[in-house]
Amino acid sequence: MRQEQDFLGSKTIPSDAYWGVHTARAVENFPITGQAVSCMPDLIRAFAYVKKAAAQANLELGVLGKTEAQAIGRACDDLIAGQLHEQFITDVIQGGAGTSTNMNANEVIANRALEHLGLAKGRYDVIHPNDHVNASQSTNDTYPTAVKLATWFGIETLLAALASLRGAFEAKGREFASILKVGRTQLQDAVPMTLGQEFDAFAAMIADDEARLRDSARLLCEINMGGTAIGTGINAPVGYVDVVTPRLAELSGVPVRPAANLIAATADTGVFLDISGVLKRIAAKLSKISNDLRLLSSGPQAGVGDIRLPARQAGSSIMPGKVNPVIPEVVNQVCFEVIGNDVAITMAVEAGQLQLNAFEPLMAWALHKSLHHLAHACQTLQVHCVEGIVANEALLEARIAQSVTLVTALNPLIGYEKSAAIAKAALASGRPIADVAEELGIMGRQEMQQLLVAERLTQAGALTPDVGAAALQSATGACLAGN
Amino acid sequence: MRQEQDFLGSKTIPSDAYWGVHTARAVENFPITGQAVSCMPDLIRAFAYVKKAAAQANLELGVLGKTEAQAIGRACDDLIAGQLHEQFITDVIQGGAGTSTNMNANEVIANRALEHLGLAKGRYDVIHPNDHVNASQSTNDTYPTAVKLATWFGIETLLAALASLRGAFEAKGREFASILKVGRTQLQDAVPMTLGQEFDAFAAMIADDEARLRDSARLLCEINMGGTAIGTGINAPVGYVDVVTPRLAELSGVPVRPAANLIAATADTGVFLDISGVLKRIAAKLSKISNDLRLLSSGPQAGVGDIRLPARQAGSSIMPGKVNPVIPEVVNQVCFEVIGNDVAITMAVEAGQLQLNAFEPLMAWALHKSLHHLAHACQTLQVHCVEGIVANEALLEARIAQSVTLVTALNPLIGYEKSAAIAKAALASGRPIADVAEELGIMGRQEMQQLLVAERLTQAGALTPDVGAAALQSATGACLAGN
Amino acid sequence: MRQEQDFLGSKTIPSDAYWGVHTARAVENFPITGQAVSCMPDLIRAFAYVKKAAAQANLELGVLGKTEAQAIGRACDDLIAGQLHEQFITDVIQGGAGTSTNMNANEVIANRALEHLGLAKGRYDVIHPNDHVNASQSTNDTYPTAVKLATWFGIETLLAALASLRGAFEAKGREFASILKVGRTQLQDAVPMTLGQEFDAFAAMIADDEARLRDSARLLCEINMGGTAIGTGINAPVGYVDVVTPRLAELSGVPVRPAANLIAATADTGVFLDISGVLKRIAAKLSKISNDLRLLSSGPQAGVGDIRLPARQAGSSIMPGKVNPVIPEVVNQVCFEVIGNDVAITMAVEAGQLQLNAFEPLMAWALHKSLHHLAHACQTLQVHCVEGIVANEALLEARIAQSVTLVTALNPLIGYEKSAAIAKAALASGRPIADVAEELGIMGRQEMQQLLVAERLTQAGALTPDVGAAALQSATGACLAGN
Amino acid sequence: MRQEQDFLGSKTIPSDAYWGVHTARAVENFPITGQAVSCMPDLIRAFAYVKKAAAQANLELGVLGKTEAQAIGRACDDLIAGQLHEQFITDVIQGGAGTSTNMNANEVIANRALEHLGLAKGRYDVIHPNDHVNASQSTNDTYPTAVKLATWFGIETLLAALASLRGAFEAKGREFASILKVGRTQLQDAVPMTLGQEFDAFAAMIADDEARLRDSARLLCEINMGGTAIGTGINAPVGYVDVVTPRLAELSGVPVRPAANLIAATADTGVFLDISGVLKRIAAKLSKISNDLRLLSSGPQAGVGDIRLPARQAGSSIMPGKVNPVIPEVVNQVCFEVIGNDVAITMAVEAGQLQLNAFEPLMAWALHKSLHHLAHACQTLQVHCVEGIVANEALLEARIAQSVTLVTALNPLIGYEKSAAIAKAALASGRPIADVAEELGIMGRQEMQQLLVAERLTQAGALTPDVGAAALQSATGACLAGN
Repeated sequence: MRQEQDFLGSKTIPSDAYWGVHTARAVENFPITGQAVSCMPDLIRAFAYVKKAAAQANLELGVLGKTEAQAIGRACDDLIAGQLHEQFITDVIQGGAGTSTNMNANEVIANRALEHLGLAKGRYDVIHPNDHVNASQSTNDTYPTAVKLATWFGIETLLAALASLRGAFEAKGREFASILKVGRTQLQDAVPMTLGQEFDAFAAMIADDEARLRDSARLLCEINMGGTAIGTGINAPVGYVDVVTPRLAELSGVPVRPAANLIAATADTGVFLDISGVLKRIAAKLSKISNDLRLLSSGPQAGVGDIRLPARQAGSSIMPGKVNPVIPEVVNQVCFEVIGNDVAITMAVEAGQLQLNAFEPLMAWALHKSLHHLAHACQTLQVHCVEGIVANEALLEARIAQSVTLVTALNPLIGYEKSAAIAKAALASGRPIADVAEELGIMGRQEMQQLLVAERLTQAGALTPDVGAAALQSATGACLAGN
Repeated sequence: MRQEQDFLGSKTIPSDAYWGVHTARAVENFPITGQAVSCMPDLIRAFAYVKKAAAQANLELGVLGKTEAQAIGRACDDLIAGQLHEQFITDVIQGGAGTSTNMNANEVIANRALEHLGLAKGRYDVIHPNDHVNASQSTNDTYPTAVKLATWFGIETLLAALASLRGAFEAKGREFASILKVGRTQLQDAVPMTLGQEFDAFAAMIADDEARLRDSARLLCEINMGGTAIGTGINAPVGYVDVVTPRLAELSGVPVRPAANLIAATADTGVFLDISGVLKRIAAKLSKISNDLRLLSSGPQAGVGDIRLPARQAGSSIMPGKVNPVIPEVVNQVCFEVIGNDVAITMAVEAGQLQLNAFEPLMAWALHKSLHHLAHACQTLQVHCVEGIVANEALLEARIAQSVTLVTALNPLIGYEKSAAIAKAALASGRPIADVAEELGIMGRQEMQQLLVAERLTQAGALTPDVGAAALQSATGACLAGN
Repeated sequence: MRQEQDFLGSKTIPSDAYWGVHTARAVENFPITGQAVSCMPDLIRAFAYVKKAAAQANLELGVLGKTEAQAIGRACDDLIAGQLHEQFITDVIQGGAGTSTNMNANEVIANRALEHLGLAKGRYDVIHPNDHVNASQSTNDTYPTAVKLATWFGIETLLAALASLRGAFEAKGREFASILKVGRTQLQDAVPMTLGQEFDAFAAMIADDEARLRDSARLLCEINMGGTAIGTGINAPVGYVDVVTPRLAELSGVPVRPAANLIAATADTGVFLDISGVLKRIAAKLSKISNDLRLLSSGPQAGVGDIRLPARQAGSSIMPGKVNPVIPEVVNQVCFEVIGNDVAITMAVEAGQLQLNAFEPLMAWALHKSLHHLAHACQTLQVHCVEGIVANEALLEARIAQSVTLVTALNPLIGYEKSAAIAKAALASGRPIADVAEELGIMGRQEMQQLLVAERLTQAGALTPDVGAAALQSATGACLAGN
Repeated sequence: MRQEQDFLGSKTIPSDAYWGVHTARAVENFPITGQAVSCMPDLIRAFAYVKKAAAQANLELGVLGKTEAQAIGRACDDLIAGQLHEQFITDVIQGGAGTSTNMNANEVIANRALEHLGLAKGRYDVIHPNDHVNASQSTNDTYPTAVKLATWFGIETLLAALASLRGAFEAKGREFASILKVGRTQLQDAVPMTLGQEFDAFAAMIADDEARLRDSARLLCEINMGGTAIGTGINAPVGYVDVVTPRLAELSGVPVRPAANLIAATADTGVFLDISGVLKRIAAKLSKISNDLRLLSSGPQAGVGDIRLPARQAGSSIMPGKVNPVIPEVVNQVCFEVIGNDVAITMAVEAGQLQLNAFEPLMAWALHKSLHHLAHACQTLQVHCVEGIVANEALLEARIAQSVTLVTALNPLIGYEKSAAIAKAALASGRPIADVAEELGIMGRQEMQQLLVAERLTQAGALTPDVGAAALQSATGACLAGN
């Protein structure tokens, strides 16, 4: 055991602990979730980049000596390589605006650096968590910067998962390109489309989400390193911002740049709302896609049944043979969680006061969950569901053959009101629209059959002038004759 | 025109206006929504009860003379009767914790009371908005009290609408009591039930909501009249609380009682969260019911199609004959609005500071919308949708006849694994379960047909000992023989 | 290793695993959060009570033999005692409406029961997860019932934490009972109160929350055991509901009773919205209290400074000696999380379809987090903050002595407009109100000083008739003379 | 009166009504809010642009004749000029995916066009709402397109209001540029800054919001005109998309372009989430700014008191002379409403099914409210609050003079621990830091006074090497000597 001090007094620390007195107090103060910051490796890596960049800048500007700066750098490298993450023992939900995570990092890095120098842990006279590791910094610039980097890393993970999922939908779009089906609006039968078009649209929606996420990620690059406590840069040497920022960009691979107004950048956590907003958008649409997959695969006998999802597990503890859409269902729930997280983040952002927002730890944690749970949801949806989807071709074909909604295509020829009369009579009698139309004297059965070729109805210009004068005139003639 | 003064200076007021200088300033300050408090008649009525009760209490305790108290009372009666509501011209969203609405009420009542005394508007030396109409009161006790009363009135309206809607579902429950159908869990075919049971369950959910709403309404009865500015009762005479509260109960018909801690009751707006929470619950369930109605009526040819909703309007500007579930759709949207309102109210409640919550006007407005839009949604759902629903009996009968899910009922006899084998084979081959079971040697076709009477499967004990020894033994015999 | 089968095929299970094939598939399907159901011990205990009660009912109704029922009961007792919780390895967020957790429980209990019978794991011919442990049950009645019990247990934990926190506020209320201060509305100085009244109000708000939570908890007692798959009771023997429910009440200590409509009770998850709504209410108010504590303790030199919170850790990595309100800050964040959870739960409840809500696992997880994080937040707030709060008595006394807001008490004597004139002049000049009043000829300095005794102003009737004729007349005389 | 027909039957329409049978049915079906679409003039104008562009494209492609197309165009011009808006009588919340608003527009335009042709209303044989006004269109492409245009127009309004508000903050930033004050983090005194920096930061946050809103607005330009019912373009002539889109851009001034995937664009309403998300971000930050203004102006005697807001109205019905921050308070409430609207929109977007989202009317309405209420809130905040803010210079100066937090600047010289010792002792004793430092032997009183010049502390490099060797060495000497 060793003794450490802060201005509240002395505290006994286990001798093998890399963390110190500040961390120990935080652990006592925040016994909330039972989950430690160690479960956010992206955030720990991000902190290591920040601290290493700061050490290099401090060396360059004469604030740190070479020995200290190099030892600190080596300790940061260890964290980047995934070592010592278990030393980040503060709770993911914590008061203090991230000070406890920052001090946890400062202490772990200081003690690791001391170790690299062959010195005992706690020799803060040589390398001090505040005076050396945290030199020219404050929690209020390092913590937001680290959270931005961590969020950037999480976005990279999610983008990869989205792209793979999109690929799976695109593949199904090609596979189903020639399967005709009845499209549906407001859950009611609408006009024909192909099943491939439906899956292509899923892919297109995800592509759109990827683009939005990529766009918003760029906003994370505006950082406030060098602003220190409130953005005025107190305690940072002149020129520090312009040295530390490119160093951090180089080390982390994230194209960070200084915010235009460091005071605003210190107080304002709006960027996390931007990211969370895009994640919520992704969630809303992924949930809609999951809803569609569950709906399209409903049945097997008394549902919509356009497609079948792969069977992944027995669906019921009581109903034998039942297979449920468990993968889309878990995706839905992740989406609901993400939407809830957005509200939590919104409240945290709104609650910032004066020169700082004290509630960034919650933002960091909620974003971490949203990003990684969404990525996992995309992966399981892709691998365990989408890739194994098959079409119920026979059912789809039968339905398109008898669909009353094909009359829509006749509007340009006979007008909305006559078309409606055919539809109404066909639905009421259960008889084919061609029969009904002939009976109503609106159009001959044969003319209609020539016109209403479903394949042609899945694109623009089906029954407009380009269709060919002959067919048109014949039809129109029948139509006029019938009235 | 007349001149009125406050401590900011003098202001010209139209001579026919019952409102005065305080209202005029508020109108300038809050040009937000374009909707005035006049669109919340329940709130105006509630204020009139509050002011009349206060005047009576002030008379009894010697704070007001008889002439003033009676004139104020008559003016309040006019508001209760629906007069002068157009004089409430402050915006529904306003700063000032409701002071502007309270002063609007004080001014309208003062000027109306002056009118009843045959005096000109603005003769505040005789009846003063603050010194007489507002005597022994503060915005901070009258406004929350009035909002509670208004909310109570709105709840009465909603309860009536819920009860009518429930009645419509109960009637359909009876009408459909003997129509068998395949129940569905996770959108997959589950076990048999009657369509009547499904509609009875809708009614039961609504009944539950009604009970919860009625329970929560009681929380509104705890008021802070007499607490004045911060709950300490400054400026109210001794004994005022105990006089004014029963008077208000008597006048308004709402069983109000004094809160135990008037300081807490002044700062705390938790009760509005309770009410909004119950409205959100109602919304979530009404939305689920609307989703179910839309899903069950999907089709007409390529959907679930258990039921048909009444056609209310042409569904499409392009697809002739299309009929959409427009009534459940509008209900869904009201429900989404209510859920959004709850978040707004939550933020407003959380934002209260120290001895007061300044954001009650938003709570009042959001609750008003939630209550009345829900009531209107229930009414249109009842009259324009539920009452006209018909069952697709032929389809339901055909489906139940061929349903594989009936094998569930065999579990108690042959175990989950053998039942699952039958189900799997039947679904794969598309053949009846009785045929498959016989072929697999699990059970004779005839035994199964005797056992699986769908009507019996909609209740407990279908195939357990009470079914009758003969049938059971025959089946079990066949089952064992088959293995 | 052992082999287990389901209708999807065969799977290798580690020989020491108590879980089986269904659990193994779920683990593959739901790699979402990395947190397993084992982190919800209340839910595991709840499942054990449910399964034991079912086994007893099945024994009584002849569905299970004595050996099986007793072995199952012993296995359940082990879970209740906290054993084998690590065997619950399915992810907390899972598809399948809880089937995977139910099957996880069925498998663990079956294998533990087999062990108690001296048999090898996997001997499902003797005790089968579905046919014996799950007999007369479905996920769709056991899972909601278990989640309700687990929520009840979590509420008990939270209620205890709330009561302790309330006790701490009450103690401070007594300690500060005679310290006068300026109350504040809308962040502006209002009328006098005692610091004790302010802390009593915090206690009163929490007491109110406790009552609301206790009320709502009763709603959890309505369960659907015996409804099986969709509430019709298929596969449960006649009379099962009436046997299993009291058994469960007796075993668990929770006064459960059968829902009136089992079909509605199976589809409807509204009760979780009720509970979440109350938790949200608690969160909104606890956040408001935390906001107030942070505001009242702001400073030390340039803030409100009515009170000082105990120093818990160094507040800053850069600003020496800074002490921040880290405990209220962590409470705020838990509250924001709870409010976000409520939105997630709302979406999950709304998303239920037809005879089941597939999204209960998210509800269970979100409620678990809300309940336990709130309980932990209350504990740290009580122990590490409230109990150590001290008043800045000198500052409070100085402020009340010079407060302009005392003029409020003069309204009943001199009217609102004259009082306002005094206040305006005093604020503009920075001079005492007694001086200003005399100068304006409204009231003598001495009269005012006699009247405005701050202690008296913290309650009703301060300056109304009961104050004593002499003082009143003297003051009024001065007042009239002055005009 | 005139008779109109649809496939549900005949209906009597007032002879002076421009709307027809479809509108009449919608009015019966959706009696929800009492607010008609007429209160969204931007949406009506947008519809007119859409219909005029379609008519021009239809003329060009031979679908409409010149007479019809021109008459329709003139009718659209009337709507653009603000005429006939009162004819849009359907409720703002409506089922049917916007069909009722589209048909309301079709009917009004048809009848106005007929009027321009000198024909009676209802002569749909000449100009038919569906066959002519709606030719080559569906609700499902025109409605989302019109909502996008209307949202664009609303964004223009909001951007102008934000820019003005920002200008007001910038002006105050300049006015307060040399007023020093104590910055605050976590509501505790932090390091020095200028009041100008604080107001500049507000301006910078708003500038950032403007940029984000402008960015997101571009997403609205991707439209699905020509997709008709489900995006396949059925009933639109070949080439229609490429003709109608540039026409619409030209007429409306909005740079619209065709979406890449019209099927995805028809089903996907994600763009409204993007916009709402940015509005929520604006709301969260505007609410934070309002909170700060209320906090900074708290007092006048017992609060933070850095600034004074202009008095806008009497703050209380009971407390004379009280002036409340009513303008920031109303802004807060608008922000809460916007945050709630975002949840409603999220639920609506998530609820879309298959080829369409039926809940766009709610999105349109919620966005309308968010945009316009925010714009109004910005205007009142600018004009009635920010422009009149004054600084409490004397108070700010006194506080900075005695502030303990200045020790932060000594860290680079004497280290964090010694600085903390000074701070702690100074706060405990209430004595100046220079005295305490000398007494503790850490630094001479004079040296410290030379170093800690507050003006210098509001920027980087205050006490680092660039400060000047002499001062530094003197101080460091004293520091080392003192230890």
